[in-house]
Amino acid sequence: MTVLTEPSIAALQNVATQLRIDSILSTTEAGSGHPTSCMSAAEIMATLFFAEMRYDARNPKHADNDRFVLSKGHAAPILYAAWAAAGAFPRDEVLKLRELTSDLEGHPTPRLPFVDVATGSLGQGLAAGVGIALNARRIDSDYRTYVLLGDGESAEGSVWEAAQVGAFHHLDNLCAITDVNGFGQSRATQFDHHVDEFVRRWEAFGWHAVAIDGHDMDAILKALAAARATRGRPTMIVAHTLKGKGVSIFENKDGWHGKPLKKGAETDQAIAELERAMVPTSDPAPVIPKPARRQAEGVLPDFTTAMPVPGYKPGEMVATREAYGAALVALGAIDRRIVALDADVKNSTFSEKFEKAYPDRFYQTFIAEQAMIGTAMGLASRGAIPFPSSFACFLERGSDFIRMAGISMLNVKLAGSHAGVSIGEDGPSQMALEDLAMMRGVPNATVLYPCDGVSTERLMALAASTSGPVYVRITRPKTPVIYNTSDRFVAGGSKTLRQSNDDAVTVVAAGITVFEALAAYDQLQREGIAIRVIDAYSIQPIDQAGLVAAGRATNGCIVTVEDHYAHGGLGDGVAEAVWDQGFIVRRLAVREIPRSGPSEELLDRYGISARAIVDAVRALVARTHTMKVAPSHR
Amino acid sequence: MTVLTEPSIAALQNVATQLRIDSILSTTEAGSGHPTSCMSAAEIMATLFFAEMRYDARNPKHADNDRFVLSKGHAAPILYAAWAAAGAFPRDEVLKLRELTSDLEGHPTPRLPFVDVATGSLGQGLAAGVGIALNARRIDSDYRTYVLLGDGESAEGSVWEAAQVGAFHHLDNLCAITDVNGFGQSRATQFDHHVDEFVRRWEAFGWHAVAIDGHDMDAILKALAAARATRGRPTMIVAHTLKGKGVSIFENKDGWHGKPLKKGAETDQAIAELERAMVPTSDPAPVIPKPARRQAEGVLPDFTTAMPVPGYKPGEMVATREAYGAALVALGAIDRRIVALDADVKNSTFSEKFEKAYPDRFYQTFIAEQAMIGTAMGLASRGAIPFPSSFACFLERGSDFIRMAGISMLNVKLAGSHAGVSIGEDGPSQMALEDLAMMRGVPNATVLYPCDGVSTERLMALAASTSGPVYVRITRPKTPVIYNTSDRFVAGGSKTLRQSNDDAVTVVAAGITVFEALAAYDQLQREGIAIRVIDAYSIQPIDQAGLVAAGRATNGCIVTVEDHYAHGGLGDGVAEAVWDQGFIVRRLAVREIPRSGPSEELLDRYGISARAIVDAVRALVARTHTMKVAPSHR
Repeated sequence: MTVLTEPSIAALQNVATQLRIDSILSTTEAGSGHPTSCMSAAEIMATLFFAEMRYDARNPKHADNDRFVLSKGHAAPILYAAWAAAGAFPRDEVLKLRELTSDLEGHPTPRLPFVDVATGSLGQGLAAGVGIALNARRIDSDYRTYVLLGDGESAEGSVWEAAQVGAFHHLDNLCAITDVNGFGQSRATQFDHHVDEFVRRWEAFGWHAVAIDGHDMDAILKALAAARATRGRPTMIVAHTLKGKGVSIFENKDGWHGKPLKKGAETDQAIAELERAMVPTSDPAPVIPKPARRQAEGVLPDFTTAMPVPGYKPGEMVATREAYGAALVALGAIDRRIVALDADVKNSTFSEKFEKAYPDRFYQTFIAEQAMIGTAMGLASRGAIPFPSSFACFLERGSDFIRMAGISMLNVKLAGSHAGVSIGEDGPSQMALEDLAMMRGVPNATVLYPCDGVSTERLMALAASTSGPVYVRITRPKTPVIYNTSDRFVAGGSKTLRQSNDDAVTVVAAGITVFEALAAYDQLQREGIAIRVIDAYSIQPIDQAGLVAAGRATNGCIVTVEDHYAHGGLGDGVAEAVWDQGFIVRRLAVREIPRSGPSEELLDRYGISARAIVDAVRALVARTHTMKVAPSHR
Repeated sequence: MTVLTEPSIAALQNVATQLRIDSILSTTEAGSGHPTSCMSAAEIMATLFFAEMRYDARNPKHADNDRFVLSKGHAAPILYAAWAAAGAFPRDEVLKLRELTSDLEGHPTPRLPFVDVATGSLGQGLAAGVGIALNARRIDSDYRTYVLLGDGESAEGSVWEAAQVGAFHHLDNLCAITDVNGFGQSRATQFDHHVDEFVRRWEAFGWHAVAIDGHDMDAILKALAAARATRGRPTMIVAHTLKGKGVSIFENKDGWHGKPLKKGAETDQAIAELERAMVPTSDPAPVIPKPARRQAEGVLPDFTTAMPVPGYKPGEMVATREAYGAALVALGAIDRRIVALDADVKNSTFSEKFEKAYPDRFYQTFIAEQAMIGTAMGLASRGAIPFPSSFACFLERGSDFIRMAGISMLNVKLAGSHAGVSIGEDGPSQMALEDLAMMRGVPNATVLYPCDGVSTERLMALAASTSGPVYVRITRPKTPVIYNTSDRFVAGGSKTLRQSNDDAVTVVAAGITVFEALAAYDQLQREGIAIRVIDAYSIQPIDQAGLVAAGRATNGCIVTVEDHYAHGGLGDGVAEAVWDQGFIVRRLAVREIPRSGPSEELLDRYGISARAIVDAVRALVARTHTMKVAPSHR
């Protein structure tokens, strides 16, 4: 443990007052923001940043910096004020808060180098903190992780998921603080200032918990020291505070959430009051200790070339979920930054293969998908390449975490198994039919959908090598290997599996429906109708040029077929890719709540089987013949 | 409290054994399912169904029946066995488990009359139970609500959200049981058989909690009686059980989750073992007491005709979120079944207006959106028409609950405010840009998107009158009233706001972008270009006929514009509606992670402003002129 310099309480108190002043000035200038939520946290922030944490403010990405996550992201102005005071950027820039040209956004995002994960959707910061603390173990660093939560956000279940995971992994390098100012947005919180309600809960969840006066510097320092001395479990410091503390206009008053002071007299009065709170002192300003220099982890390998050639033979039956597990092991052998997370379905997703090979890089969160994804976000923010996986439908439990992972531009590689009605008898609660829409709704996410063992291996390497969030959709039933080990797969690519000069319609499939499309091809071939069959393994980005060319070559007629609802999936993606071509795009997709039943029966009943494709192609061919129109000539 | 008959322990034990036998037989016949998860719960189920609960098995919808929610939905076979034993349907039907033609699905859904909410996505049942228990208060009934949870699913944060809400509302008519069999799907749970870990957590969360041997009928009966006697708080019975109990092949063995016994010797051996466990007794079979008859709540009014005429004047500036609050109050005046729920943003969504008018029908869950939606599901399952609302992006926190509300076919009326970049400075974490995709991904959901005060009132009445899940998307900034109070709005309708015989392009907008489209109309008018402007207030179902007709009248050229990401929203909906027309559909939508900034600047920067519409129309007009093609004549 680095020896920390010990600034005087007076000097720290003045820092706290300065942070308050800057939070008032920046929100007044912006005309919006949450000054009262900053005021309650000023002593906590001053103490953490200037008497506890060890970091290089000029090099916020330093691997051994202590880390701070502002889970109550609406207190962004005081976060910015603290980093400015620490020297990360000039103090007067805080006045650009919330301007379109400034990275000092309304809530923190990693556009700022000192922000690891975006916050502002409440209740997410602690899971990220768990991941960041686990990362310290991964890189064998003694950095500590601090997370500041609000009392209101502690009602989010995700907080208690993170609490469990932090306790299960004995994260004594993690220290959280709850700012119990007693007010939510619209009313008093359910526990008001009863800090014992929080202490009881955190202790029950296996944490070291202590209640303090959150405006008493000495108490904060002692609690932080006790946290450092605690072994085998994380610490929660429950801080009794006053919302708006230090400014009599709104101190401890309801109805002031998210409201800045008015420019002019109101702000002037507040600033004058705060300036009067400055303590005359000749004590030296606090000095922030820096971590020791150490090797960075180095440039990432190109996983697409480093992966061994897949061992699958053409025709071999293998579920893509099983190939996923095998590919994860292969990736793990290439670089130690590859880690995996599971929410108690490792035997279904086959991530258990990775656990067996690399138990120290496998993190179990039990049935807590939000915590799994949030922990992955934290790990990714510190350089790991995490692969959290579950049933695809249960990833939807973490939909809002995935949204924030996108905003955070993090290298989280999600895999969802048991996609679609093809899972069969378990029924609709276990079938993901919205996951492509969810993941395509992350603008910077890459969405990949292998159909066989070879493409799974190749796309997993692509996932590891692609920057930003990636989603790999995998399937429950076994499918035959159709690709050769020499086939190449790229983001934005597709594979044309069947084609001729006489193709009447293009059929675009992905995953399990590729095999329905191939069966439809055979049947239609016997009827004298040729179709082009495309495997759109890259759902986002999609192969726009390839789809346009295929559509033009097939009378402007495209049929898409997906084991997913009609909304937001493959069909919509294909339709948008060809939007300016005047094509006809018929989407075959699930259009009602499905039932339990055998996989093949369900594919047929919900209109995504070979039979359904054949029917759709026949109808389009009949129509094209009748209308004598070739849209491809437009 | 109804006097319960007291069957003998021996008779109850034989019921438990019969439930075990039926669970084995049905899963063996199906060739899949979770028999071991049924075995651990057999004594609990037998006791609840035949010695505790009061219900009419032939009339499972009876308003005063005690209610049971199987949160560990994978134990469906024993639920079905229990209802069959109670007389709800013939016992031999359990052998149709998981067949496509049977409603006895892999996990329970309300296709079955005795199932209130679909379960199987773990951790959701308790929130539904909270809603069902709150409903007892609403209708002044003494029915009690029972929820059976698994130990594994207790890792879901949603369980702890529900725990908080149940304690906050002092639901002493709610009794939950945790089946602590120690095994999850893929491994031992984090707490194994340490029931004290559960008791400590539930007590900390304000529940009456007691640990028992879950295979000891007498202990179960005593714990249930203690729950009935507890005042002011709900009860959690923590039951130590063995997974696979009673069948030596898999009793208390890992690796048996979700695996049926093999047909033949394996099953025969298990059945023989269970049959030997039958206790010879002449005690009478248990008798289930029925609740007293009472008035049903009656047929719902037609809210669309019962709502008073909106009081807004043309041109009046009113935010649709404010109109939402006012409409909620008006609906509440029409029928007591209208209730509202909030997750601490009532002053932003204006649901606080409803709280002021009808405090006894307003339920606060604090910042716990999963619990808010789950509680609404429970209320809806018992006849209420709940309107849970929050910032639209935070509804995504409950994405998986919304998915299950769709599977449950429940009357939950969600409203999401602060949609899109138009919220301005708060930044991307507060902007919903995926909510239309999420809600369109519920096949039986109606998605409505008003743009002004009048349409908000009308669409709220439509929401209340429409069966199944409904989503109303509302906006932060004020917009001018453009509709007359006599205008009518229907699901699947749209409003053509501008049209002429010379329209070159159809512009389809909704919500905030309606006003951008109208501004674009004015500007293009000055350039001599006429456009048709459509307000697609009904996003799902969408006005297919109207869109096709408009597209045909405007050279097959459509521009859509939405304050939402490009995926899964209005543009995709319009494109699919006109899929067979060969139209060109240009989607204007947000296509990157947005920043903080003023509302108008963001609309423009992300390409959904009047200027962007003008540019898109100009480009299409130029193209149409060049190509001399009129796709509408195809």
